[in-house]
Amino acid sequence: MATRTARRPTTAPSPASPTRSARSTAAARSSSERLAESTPLRIIPLGGVGEIGKNMYVFEYGEDIVVVDCGLMFPDEEMFGIDLVVPDVTYLRERREAVRAFIITHAHEDHVGGLPYVLPDFPGVPIYASTLARGLLSNKVKEHHLTNNPMLALEAGETVTVGPFTVTAFRIGHSIPDAMGLIIRTPVGIVVHTGDFKFDHTPVDGKPSDFHALAKVGEEGVLCLLSDSTRAENPGYTPSERTVGEAFREIMEPLDGRVIVATFASNIARVQQVFDAARSFERKVAVVGRSMEQNVRIATELGYLEYPQSQLIAKDQIRSTPSDRLVIATTGAQGEPMAGLARMANRDHRWVEIEPGDTVIVSASPIPGNEEYVARTIDNLFKQGANVIYHAIRHAHVSGHASQEELKLMLNLTRPKYFIPMHGEFRMLVQHGRLAAEVGVAAENILIVENGQPVEFRADGTARRGQPVSSGYVFVDGLSVGEVGDVVLRDRRALAADGMFLVVVTVDKQTGRVIGEPEIVTRGFVDDLSDPVIGAAAKRVLHAIARPEEHTSEVALLKTQIKDGLSRYLYEQTKRRPMVFPVVVEV
Amino acid sequence: MATRTARRPTTAPSPASPTRSARSTAAARSSSERLAESTPLRIIPLGGVGEIGKNMYVFEYGEDIVVVDCGLMFPDEEMFGIDLVVPDVTYLRERREAVRAFIITHAHEDHVGGLPYVLPDFPGVPIYASTLARGLLSNKVKEHHLTNNPMLALEAGETVTVGPFTVTAFRIGHSIPDAMGLIIRTPVGIVVHTGDFKFDHTPVDGKPSDFHALAKVGEEGVLCLLSDSTRAENPGYTPSERTVGEAFREIMEPLDGRVIVATFASNIARVQQVFDAARSFERKVAVVGRSMEQNVRIATELGYLEYPQSQLIAKDQIRSTPSDRLVIATTGAQGEPMAGLARMANRDHRWVEIEPGDTVIVSASPIPGNEEYVARTIDNLFKQGANVIYHAIRHAHVSGHASQEELKLMLNLTRPKYFIPMHGEFRMLVQHGRLAAEVGVAAENILIVENGQPVEFRADGTARRGQPVSSGYVFVDGLSVGEVGDVVLRDRRALAADGMFLVVVTVDKQTGRVIGEPEIVTRGFVDDLSDPVIGAAAKRVLHAIARPEEHTSEVALLKTQIKDGLSRYLYEQTKRRPMVFPVVVEV
Repeated sequence: MATRTARRPTTAPSPASPTRSARSTAAARSSSERLAESTPLRIIPLGGVGEIGKNMYVFEYGEDIVVVDCGLMFPDEEMFGIDLVVPDVTYLRERREAVRAFIITHAHEDHVGGLPYVLPDFPGVPIYASTLARGLLSNKVKEHHLTNNPMLALEAGETVTVGPFTVTAFRIGHSIPDAMGLIIRTPVGIVVHTGDFKFDHTPVDGKPSDFHALAKVGEEGVLCLLSDSTRAENPGYTPSERTVGEAFREIMEPLDGRVIVATFASNIARVQQVFDAARSFERKVAVVGRSMEQNVRIATELGYLEYPQSQLIAKDQIRSTPSDRLVIATTGAQGEPMAGLARMANRDHRWVEIEPGDTVIVSASPIPGNEEYVARTIDNLFKQGANVIYHAIRHAHVSGHASQEELKLMLNLTRPKYFIPMHGEFRMLVQHGRLAAEVGVAAENILIVENGQPVEFRADGTARRGQPVSSGYVFVDGLSVGEVGDVVLRDRRALAADGMFLVVVTVDKQTGRVIGEPEIVTRGFVDDLSDPVIGAAAKRVLHAIARPEEHTSEVALLKTQIKDGLSRYLYEQTKRRPMVFPVVVEV
Repeated sequence: MATRTARRPTTAPSPASPTRSARSTAAARSSSERLAESTPLRIIPLGGVGEIGKNMYVFEYGEDIVVVDCGLMFPDEEMFGIDLVVPDVTYLRERREAVRAFIITHAHEDHVGGLPYVLPDFPGVPIYASTLARGLLSNKVKEHHLTNNPMLALEAGETVTVGPFTVTAFRIGHSIPDAMGLIIRTPVGIVVHTGDFKFDHTPVDGKPSDFHALAKVGEEGVLCLLSDSTRAENPGYTPSERTVGEAFREIMEPLDGRVIVATFASNIARVQQVFDAARSFERKVAVVGRSMEQNVRIATELGYLEYPQSQLIAKDQIRSTPSDRLVIATTGAQGEPMAGLARMANRDHRWVEIEPGDTVIVSASPIPGNEEYVARTIDNLFKQGANVIYHAIRHAHVSGHASQEELKLMLNLTRPKYFIPMHGEFRMLVQHGRLAAEVGVAAENILIVENGQPVEFRADGTARRGQPVSSGYVFVDGLSVGEVGDVVLRDRRALAADGMFLVVVTVDKQTGRVIGEPEIVTRGFVDDLSDPVIGAAAKRVLHAIARPEEHTSEVALLKTQIKDGLSRYLYEQTKRRPMVFPVVVEV
């Protein structure tokens, strides 16, 4: 490989060039070749490392950017009051003109949920997605008026060219139909992005992962593999989705009470298996829960869900259907307080009241962070008299993500020179990196990167870490996207810990004397407003500011005196630190 | 059994009674017999159901009460700002004179942590505990000045009589030495309380559970068994603590860097195994973390921990000890933000700085609710360059609680007529109840009770549920015990969700006119105080109250107008609902 380092393609005509057209072709080729050598391909995670559920990888070459996925994550327990968290796309906004396309691997929220908050900054940029993904996105498009971005078809097996990138989608197994991985041909080499995946040899829809496409690209030569690390800690193979259907049948067979199955609304294959198992025992299916009803409708229309029309009954038929002829499919398998299952567990559901004799199948494993919600829901269902089949007792769920043996298979099929583990917490990336080393990827070519950390690949086959770019969280809170930041969160944390204590003092502007009694407003501090500490605090305030020698007409100083004195006093009395707000009104 | 139902022992002399003394003896016997038939034994969980970590069972017979354990729990994520949660002992306080003793099964916080908050109401009532438990409690006694309650010895194998109860402690395996179960002989029958337990056949201290005492009492006839349900969902047997020592050795053998082992400070057997494994590879041990240092000191003094004196090095020798000669034992295996391991992970530890080449063994499984803390700590340790051995990768931890086969063994050894599963979330009690049914306890004699739900046993061998008694949580927050209640928590939740918005308006008392501009103080609502919504809100307030036709001298009404108008406006503008506080100052 030559070591030319021309920074800019030259357009000076070669003296030996025979014809104008040939010359310009040669110049163009030479220019693009030199460009390839001088311009790096930059791969940048803006989400996808450190927290599952906010996936976004950026592919940048010169003046062209393609973005793969745009997810959201749900707030962790310290993000008080936050509704959603989406990736900070400052980096993309600063390169608005370069962004050519968003490509969606599948329509799970952690891959598409950020679109409504990100797209408004990128009008006209097309979104490529498969048929089902486009179908599931259609509601989001309507709800958020995302009509400025054309929604284009990209199905597994199809190829689209976007700027310098030629992107071929390939079918990959996951817990939603039509999930895709991407083979991205770039001027410096081929990159494979697996999307979320598992290798299910007996998928419910009969369409296994495209092993051949992966084998072929592996032979061709893969510069870099980006692969799903969610289950990199898990040895062996993830079982086939089909095993869940068998579990459903085994559980339902001896029952003559109602069966309630809670699972993910987007797991169409799982819902298919609920219909199938129910049919084996001549049970009808009622679908309950907004997102599941919506998804079932869309998936049925698009042909992703098959059942006799008469098997699906309306919610208002639930009460009139005999218990041994009914399965209810619902949402809330993660214990989400507002979803179907938790409402049923709390006797707060419009259509379903849990009765002794009901069997509830929680067809999910708790996602990290949701364990307590799930536990509470299961406990409450037991208290209502239901029998509950849940993850700790019997598996009626399988993951949609590849375990270690599948991850190694992916590595061995694609035989990448470089490997970037993606989608997972840092420790999972580390474990995935170890798997790559085991199958023979050179240790120095295993690149564990955090969000905002670019990896730059050059035509000479080298790779290096670039300067970190702007990345991080943006909080969605009510209508605000990004307005609520760390200061607000810090204050919410302080308010949550010990509440607030407000004191209003009226002062005579002339004399500096306090007029009347201080008014106190406190919340989240003491239960009883007649608590002696409150009265004593008021006296303390008067005392602190009534010393004649310290009279001051400086409101700011007065406030500081009140705040400091009061904070100290309240802490001494209670060992708690409410936020103290002094208000001084001068009259 | 006779069916006499005398409510009160009669003292009328029988006409056939031969002598006064014989007569009075007969009368006494008859009286106590009748008492036995009429007075129920009441067993009441005041903590121990629904949340692991707040264990307290009450045994009441007539005018005598014995309390077994007095635990605390750590607040869940919705208990904002709360330090600790202890059982509500209103029921005991109302029967203060009847409380004869607290008996402690072992000195884990979830069994003794409530004592400092409960004992002040029960001066003079003795606490029975084993040698190690008394040793570990001594710090608590000092710290909280609990000198009004005599601390009495009750060792495994010993019997103490407390009122009508004859209590024999028996040795049982658990993740702390000297753990005990209790055989409680009562006037209506024998009750067995297992404490927390597992059946470890090869315990580190060489002292297995007292199978013989259990077998013997089982032959004698057990009225009721109360048994630990923590691991009732787990099939099979819990492995021996000794397997952890083997894991330590296997992990340490190939290493030449430092080894850091994080585990529970109270798990003396685990710490013993750290010393033992370290010694196999000629490594010294440094103990880091206040509670672990304390416990190691006490356990060493009392002879529960054995190692050559020279093996233990001081913290300030850590830096000068060669990496391959050092093991650091520390706290924080649950990711607790203030404990040793999290501080090391955050480069915020005074004595230990993580270096590449360090191996960290997290010798624990995350307790429900701690998963995210543990995950974050592990991630940060990896980022510091350490190799981390944790639960998902390799087990270097075993539970201290019995799995299903051990629970069945406990049931089969004691052969109880009645069974009350204790210590566990509701679903675990349900599972434990199923195990009891499997081994032959009559279904109607399996009593799944919630906190505050008494079970009453009578001498005729019957049992029934009594009227629920006062029970629940008491929050410890700073110096306050029980003063912070639901109202405060509700306000903290509201403040945490959307912050607060305070507006101060000064009004002329005579004219009802607003003087000057409203002052606005807001926290946890918007990041930027120059946000237009704030200025607009001030104008809105003026507008709302400045309409002459609505002039009012009613401050209360004015406040309501401001609050309602402002709340509505802020919600419309932001879809958030900060707590709005209107302050009206009349001058």
